[in-house]
Amino acid sequence: MAKDRGVNWRFLLEWQTPTSAVLHVIKRVIYSGRTKYQEVDILDTYDFGLCLVLDGKIQSSSADEQVYHVALVHPAMLTHPKPSRVLIIGGGEGATLREVLKHNTVEKAVMVDLDDEVVQLCKKYLPEFHMNSFDDPRTEIIIEDGRRYVERLPDNSIDVAIIDVTDPLEGGPSYLLYTIEFYQLLAKKLGDGGVFVTQATSTYYSRNCFAAIYKTVASVFPVARTYHVFVPSYASEWGFVLGSKAADPLSLTSEEIERRMKERGVDNLKFYSPSIHHGIFALPSCLAQAFEAAKPVTDSSPVFMSA
Amino acid sequence: MAKDRGVNWRFLLEWQTPTSAVLHVIKRVIYSGRTKYQEVDILDTYDFGLCLVLDGKIQSSSADEQVYHVALVHPAMLTHPKPSRVLIIGGGEGATLREVLKHNTVEKAVMVDLDDEVVQLCKKYLPEFHMNSFDDPRTEIIIEDGRRYVERLPDNSIDVAIIDVTDPLEGGPSYLLYTIEFYQLLAKKLGDGGVFVTQATSTYYSRNCFAAIYKTVASVFPVARTYHVFVPSYASEWGFVLGSKAADPLSLTSEEIERRMKERGVDNLKFYSPSIHHGIFALPSCLAQAFEAAKPVTDSSPVFMSA
Amino acid sequence: MAKDRGVNWRFLLEWQTPTSAVLHVIKRVIYSGRTKYQEVDILDTYDFGLCLVLDGKIQSSSADEQVYHVALVHPAMLTHPKPSRVLIIGGGEGATLREVLKHNTVEKAVMVDLDDEVVQLCKKYLPEFHMNSFDDPRTEIIIEDGRRYVERLPDNSIDVAIIDVTDPLEGGPSYLLYTIEFYQLLAKKLGDGGVFVTQATSTYYSRNCFAAIYKTVASVFPVARTYHVFVPSYASEWGFVLGSKAADPLSLTSEEIERRMKERGVDNLKFYSPSIHHGIFALPSCLAQAFEAAKPVTDSSPVFMSA
Amino acid sequence: MAKDRGVNWRFLLEWQTPTSAVLHVIKRVIYSGRTKYQEVDILDTYDFGLCLVLDGKIQSSSADEQVYHVALVHPAMLTHPKPSRVLIIGGGEGATLREVLKHNTVEKAVMVDLDDEVVQLCKKYLPEFHMNSFDDPRTEIIIEDGRRYVERLPDNSIDVAIIDVTDPLEGGPSYLLYTIEFYQLLAKKLGDGGVFVTQATSTYYSRNCFAAIYKTVASVFPVARTYHVFVPSYASEWGFVLGSKAADPLSLTSEEIERRMKERGVDNLKFYSPSIHHGIFALPSCLAQAFEAAKPVTDSSPVFMSA
Repeated sequence: MAKDRGVNWRFLLEWQTPTSAVLHVIKRVIYSGRTKYQEVDILDTYDFGLCLVLDGKIQSSSADEQVYHVALVHPAMLTHPKPSRVLIIGGGEGATLREVLKHNTVEKAVMVDLDDEVVQLCKKYLPEFHMNSFDDPRTEIIIEDGRRYVERLPDNSIDVAIIDVTDPLEGGPSYLLYTIEFYQLLAKKLGDGGVFVTQATSTYYSRNCFAAIYKTVASVFPVARTYHVFVPSYASEWGFVLGSKAADPLSLTSEEIERRMKERGVDNLKFYSPSIHHGIFALPSCLAQAFEAAKPVTDSSPVFMSA
Repeated sequence: MAKDRGVNWRFLLEWQTPTSAVLHVIKRVIYSGRTKYQEVDILDTYDFGLCLVLDGKIQSSSADEQVYHVALVHPAMLTHPKPSRVLIIGGGEGATLREVLKHNTVEKAVMVDLDDEVVQLCKKYLPEFHMNSFDDPRTEIIIEDGRRYVERLPDNSIDVAIIDVTDPLEGGPSYLLYTIEFYQLLAKKLGDGGVFVTQATSTYYSRNCFAAIYKTVASVFPVARTYHVFVPSYASEWGFVLGSKAADPLSLTSEEIERRMKERGVDNLKFYSPSIHHGIFALPSCLAQAFEAAKPVTDSSPVFMSA
Repeated sequence: MAKDRGVNWRFLLEWQTPTSAVLHVIKRVIYSGRTKYQEVDILDTYDFGLCLVLDGKIQSSSADEQVYHVALVHPAMLTHPKPSRVLIIGGGEGATLREVLKHNTVEKAVMVDLDDEVVQLCKKYLPEFHMNSFDDPRTEIIIEDGRRYVERLPDNSIDVAIIDVTDPLEGGPSYLLYTIEFYQLLAKKLGDGGVFVTQATSTYYSRNCFAAIYKTVASVFPVARTYHVFVPSYASEWGFVLGSKAADPLSLTSEEIERRMKERGVDNLKFYSPSIHHGIFALPSCLAQAFEAAKPVTDSSPVFMSA
Repeated sequence: MAKDRGVNWRFLLEWQTPTSAVLHVIKRVIYSGRTKYQEVDILDTYDFGLCLVLDGKIQSSSADEQVYHVALVHPAMLTHPKPSRVLIIGGGEGATLREVLKHNTVEKAVMVDLDDEVVQLCKKYLPEFHMNSFDDPRTEIIIEDGRRYVERLPDNSIDVAIIDVTDPLEGGPSYLLYTIEFYQLLAKKLGDGGVFVTQATSTYYSRNCFAAIYKTVASVFPVARTYHVFVPSYASEWGFVLGSKAADPLSLTSEEIERRMKERGVDNLKFYSPSIHHGIFALPSCLAQAFEAAKPVTDSSPVFMSA
């Protein structure tokens, strides 16, 4: 398939819908196996470098994991005036952790992931993703279901919560981390100025899912905002929903963002900078329509990514 | 491949690079043939509806052609205070024309396309794309090489020029519409407040090409800006470069955009609205780096889309 | 995908099973549409030339249709001592007819096909397949369901019957042409020395279907034999079942076959010759086992190709 | 792609030509790596079970390796009246060895394979292929280039030689095992009644290569015969060429084959039986034509598989 057809015979097809997919030629299979929870492939691809693939879906790639992880972490961290205690749910690669730890305000970063094997595989095979963030003295890794862990947390005990889990798929391990009950629980555990952010699936292929997550967050948090960035290895623009108990990311000026970044020692971010902050929150009219139609979702009537 | 595997056997693979592609299941082949200049497929796909495919690349689809055409046309049209004489180069589907004609300031819209057969096929098979814009009394269709047509134009004879041609591919019909010589020619033909915009390929897969087009435009026009939108059927964020002899799109306030849209009778645009205008112009830091490294290109040393 | 990746974007995937397929790059779509009964694609492929594709399955290709049609027709025709009245069911391409008419003993060849549109499309687009056999004065074309036509036939009115219909698929138009009831009906219409042959699906991918067809024929005809040939465009060895009221193809010597061919003016056959006659009837031990396990099938309990 | 699309994302595309391929959904990647000589994948597929894949080409699969290995080994072994000293070149899986050792006339079976890593991987991951034949006291495994090993052998020192190496690809490790010089060398090392057999690529996709191998063998050995069997995982009928210094496989009666098998304790072979022996040697007329056109090949003007 490449000019030298002879070297191409292993393919990954990542299905966006039952009738469309992205095809990647695989250069090398680094690891392929099944954990207690999911199938894991770590693949070296020609176009996106190393990819972590869970149940057939690319979670992150060398080529653009920074776009995704930077976009996930920093708007929420910067919206909080002084994020000290940070909770990450999911984030097995350690890259979300890596971005969180860039803020020198952080005293404690707890990462709760369900799947120990995935965490160990990422530690071993994806050092450029975690950059030793697992060994940072501020880091604590807990292997447990994220929601159960949150239930056990004291109220008002975290400043920023970042939900970096797989998409809400029927029968998958994550869909109960996208419901009103979970967000209510989380709101109680967040301190007064608490900020929360979640990945929110594709703005195109699962627009209704994205919209439903937004509506659900908006029904719990006084401030709810969405933003989106194009993530090439997802072949889609990706949505994020931010909920906040006080501060509004749209009220932050570029100057204030720049000041906070400098103060906290956060610089040289790939993709994100103060000048694009407001742009990524701007909502195209077609998305605005989907948002109007959506409704909050509950444990008993969850939303699933359409695919 | 769809749940009912039985009905899926015709596929389109659109290659982004020699080692990655997007796969679409084809529901129906509406037309498939070769014109004097290129291979044309009009395909009905499950996920993007009707697609116009030239030489194996999706040019536009029912599902999102409005995103692309709206994004291509309106920022430039709105940057000009009173666009009356508009030139479109390419745009065979008639959808760019359709968007241009929405501005009631337009007195004359000339569309110059190289390939009469493509224009006729679009007329026949894609009525929802052109919406009879070919029959608008303000419309003139000219079948000719775009550059040669521009050479013949009197100076100061157009207000807005929109370049909606295929990507600059080696050996393809369009790469000489992306050079400094062509932009200089165009600048002469534009009136004093003239504005020009060109599609500028993928911001990811052909980032260097996008950057080179920007640098080339910037070397000719006093104002040069880039913007980008995610176009799902291109599986990528898409870049645009706007050159202007006077007005700067970044200086337009949302209120002014809203006022101009109302005045000109432009409303209900899919995707674009005054509130997202500034967001799409915001440049991620990774693109900013590519821009620094790029250089203007000339007829004798053209840029080609990397693929 | 070819060395020049640029020219390859249209693909046919012919599924052998839900998890394996043969991929063909399409050079040109000659025709693509839907008749009353099925979807029809006539495709020009790089490797097999023109292909007639019904409901996503290659029926015959320029490259090897002679292998299939020669193998289907001549063993049965040569087993009959003097085939004069020949019935073909299916065979829309006209290629089975073409082979039948090579025997100068034939006075009447009736071809009964369900789908007039397919016959017309083959006439128009596949002249090298039918070689004007539709216009032979001995030819009669009838558009009707094959089984209904056979019901109306007088007893003892045909010498050789050739069943060249699509595979027995659930919900498809052909599965009732593979049952004991149909074969009993056919046996009555055949004269005393009557011979019948049917295509019998893949010897590998639908081995049990092949075996069931054999058992069904064997329960009706005193002589029942299977043979198989490799048909490249089917990516499989293909099975045939021959039923005979008197003569046994295995009792024919090569000399007798040669004599009959010469006498009847049949020569220069691609693939078949007297010297391979016995070889194609030899049954590998793995197939013999499948045959032991199979049972005859009836209208009310039909066999379907596994796929 | 399977009915449950969700579980299918890893694919093997085995290219037959630059424009056609067989697609297999991979259930599990057992091993994937690169040895000194080639890329090795051991894959569990839905349709063919475990597959050994070298440089992207399936060498053998659980589902049908017996068809290939039985067809490769027994016609040559049975043509020799008393095969005692057997040489295998290639055959890393140990399955050719397994078949050879079924003949109780064998006192010594030497297997010479270039790639120790492949042999070790097969030992570890493909026990059902070798069935412990590596541990048979009559077995000797030598890691060396096959041709160099043959050069060192004393004359008249082997009874049967079996060439089970990869296809003759330009730049590959095997093409010098298909030339007149190699066959002359081999003929000297074979005893008076010596028999040799080689796999000889696809009878369809590389027909000219098959024909050239035949012509080359025929220019060295007094008896040269070809035969072919359909190997499903190769999606093709596969050719073999047998060269013999005395006995002719076509002169063996089925009774004699049956007698020899019984005498030597060879029974229950999948695919092969005395009754199909002559059938597989029968040459279709289309192949006969290719054979006429072919010429013997030499070290300096080798033949390559067309693909």
